Amino acid sequence: MEQIQIAASTHSYKVEIGASLRFQLESIIEGSYKNILVITDSEVAPLYLEDVKQSFPSHVEITEHIVPAGEASKSMEQYSRLMDTCIARQLDRKSLIVGLGGGMVGDLAGFAAATYLRGIDFLQMPTTILAHDSSVGGKVAINHTQGKNLIGCFYNPIQVIYDTETLSSLPSAEIRSGFGEVVKHALLSDSAWCEEILKTNILHLSSEQLNEYLAKGIKVKAQIVEEDEKEQGIRKHLNLGHTLAHALEAELGYGRITHGEAVAIGIWFAMRVSEQYLEASLPVGNYIKWLQMNHYPINLAETIDPDRIIERMKWDKKTVDSQIHYVLLEAVGNPVVQKIEEGLIKEYLSDFIKEVSGIDERN
Amino acid sequence: MEQIQIAASTHSYKVEIGASLRFQLESIIEGSYKNILVITDSEVAPLYLEDVKQSFPSHVEITEHIVPAGEASKSMEQYSRLMDTCIARQLDRKSLIVGLGGGMVGDLAGFAAATYLRGIDFLQMPTTILAHDSSVGGKVAINHTQGKNLIGCFYNPIQVIYDTETLSSLPSAEIRSGFGEVVKHALLSDSAWCEEILKTNILHLSSEQLNEYLAKGIKVKAQIVEEDEKEQGIRKHLNLGHTLAHALEAELGYGRITHGEAVAIGIWFAMRVSEQYLEASLPVGNYIKWLQMNHYPINLAETIDPDRIIERMKWDKKTVDSQIHYVLLEAVGNPVVQKIEEGLIKEYLSDFIKEVSGIDERN
Repeated sequence: MEQIQIAASTHSYKVEIGASLRFQLESIIEGSYKNILVITDSEVAPLYLEDVKQSFPSHVEITEHIVPAGEASKSMEQYSRLMDTCIARQLDRKSLIVGLGGGMVGDLAGFAAATYLRGIDFLQMPTTILAHDSSVGGKVAINHTQGKNLIGCFYNPIQVIYDTETLSSLPSAEIRSGFGEVVKHALLSDSAWCEEILKTNILHLSSEQLNEYLAKGIKVKAQIVEEDEKEQGIRKHLNLGHTLAHALEAELGYGRITHGEAVAIGIWFAMRVSEQYLEASLPVGNYIKWLQMNHYPINLAETIDPDRIIERMKWDKKTVDSQIHYVLLEAVGNPVVQKIEEGLIKEYLSDFIKEVSGIDERN
Repeated sequence: MEQIQIAASTHSYKVEIGASLRFQLESIIEGSYKNILVITDSEVAPLYLEDVKQSFPSHVEITEHIVPAGEASKSMEQYSRLMDTCIARQLDRKSLIVGLGGGMVGDLAGFAAATYLRGIDFLQMPTTILAHDSSVGGKVAINHTQGKNLIGCFYNPIQVIYDTETLSSLPSAEIRSGFGEVVKHALLSDSAWCEEILKTNILHLSSEQLNEYLAKGIKVKAQIVEEDEKEQGIRKHLNLGHTLAHALEAELGYGRITHGEAVAIGIWFAMRVSEQYLEASLPVGNYIKWLQMNHYPINLAETIDPDRIIERMKWDKKTVDSQIHYVLLEAVGNPVVQKIEEGLIKEYLSDFIKEVSGIDERN
């Protein structure tokens, strides 16, 4: 079991990474609770919910709230129902909410924990690679019909327990999605690690290698959020690839592309913009080969309309005074934020769509 | 203009108290904003909304969201509509939400500001005496059908601007309500000040005296919340009178008694329990005379049923492990928290109802 300590502004907490941790919760969890609510989704529940529940002694009151799998459950309606459940189960200020699942579950459960009785303890149990990113850093939220994560707050978990065995059942698209954020963490921090990843077929990783990459990714994220929890400064770097990704997800319709796959495409674009705008020298060729080798759905980006994408980028929650702020790379490990004029972004985007159209998805 | 500085955990902010401040907002507000949303209610809007809006220069985009007056607007439904408005008005992370009104507006607007885009700036403009209490300390919330303030968080305003001229239009019940918390602050802190208040007819106060009492009350509250923002310890003292008050409000049905009037009755009960349980020596006689002189609706407490009240007390959000924690006074200025056995509380409550029934409301 690997342990990473995160110093958040409100308190310090541990991320525990290892196989079979879901069977050892009683000994791993630091607090003591009489009343626990596990929030999970309809796909994760049949796989791991019973293991989690059985992992506590019988005197603990442990119940569950299961939401439908999928981003649509991060809604005001599901949030409201969840509050009803918290009250019906008589959770008090000493109770615990566990978020067992991917980023959707973590965000929803975290927002519930943050706002029930003005905040009760919250434990994250990520079950996807992508959630190595979202489970650290304290961002919790639900979506609005007008955009993702528009309603939320900053609320840190008391512990993150990452049973990597639960990753073995992930479909390929989910592995790619998770690696969109892993490769981002590498690009933000470490060119040697980045080079290594870009040689890797992520669909055939050993569990040791996967655990190592997750721990590395979490450390990169932790270091950034420790320095800038509220995203006043360098935390913005974590949005590398995300401005286009959010627009892409919204434009294609949620569910047609996973978040991390969209991020991976967004990173490609950010690299191209960095080359042109900053004259940066970046491993774009290897990056594209890596996307192809791992079957990222890059052809989806062929169909987009630059004007519509620009409109979506402008109405992103990271917009300030209606200007688009872009995270670029001066080099691997050296991110910067740039305001870029709308006309220029549009030009870059048209070039990018042409490039994408000329490339075969499957190499 | 009096100024009180409050050192919250996230940042320090000022409470400005004085007449006509609503006409001078541009010069008083410390931040600079291009897009401001004023949240207010249907009773306050016709009185003060235009003054507030006119107080800003014309290049500031300033719009309003008006909710129906009354506690019922602290609902999930109104909160959800408010989020729609924030998005429709394109509020971004540099925008400001102003809560113009009493505690209901402050709580709702504060919860909106806390959770929109994970938190944007929030300015409180209290228009009631009661809100001298709620506008300081960072508690924001909405109600659930099962209880008040069950959904919320801690979120500090960036400034509180208290135009005491807006208090002149308050009806008597609202003045009494506000003084329920003022007298609580006196009882928690200062026996000389307490003695002075208990001689006062609060319906005929000079504005100077009122301003002084409000400033004193805010200082008591500030000192406590600075030491214990998240209510792990001494902040619980601020619940003096509130355990019975919450049960009373719920039992009578919201709207039949104001919050602060219920608190004033709750304090009387807490004083009686303190005498019996702690053998405390307290000015209960003067306190009852003060309630009568100011026409507090004490006869409403005659009709309550002890068993039902106990049930409601047990299911209060301050309950931990289903035990009732009670704030008592060892002396004026010396509060303590006690776990009291249910049977004993029931006995005290029966005695109290008998006492109330024997007393004429209007002296």
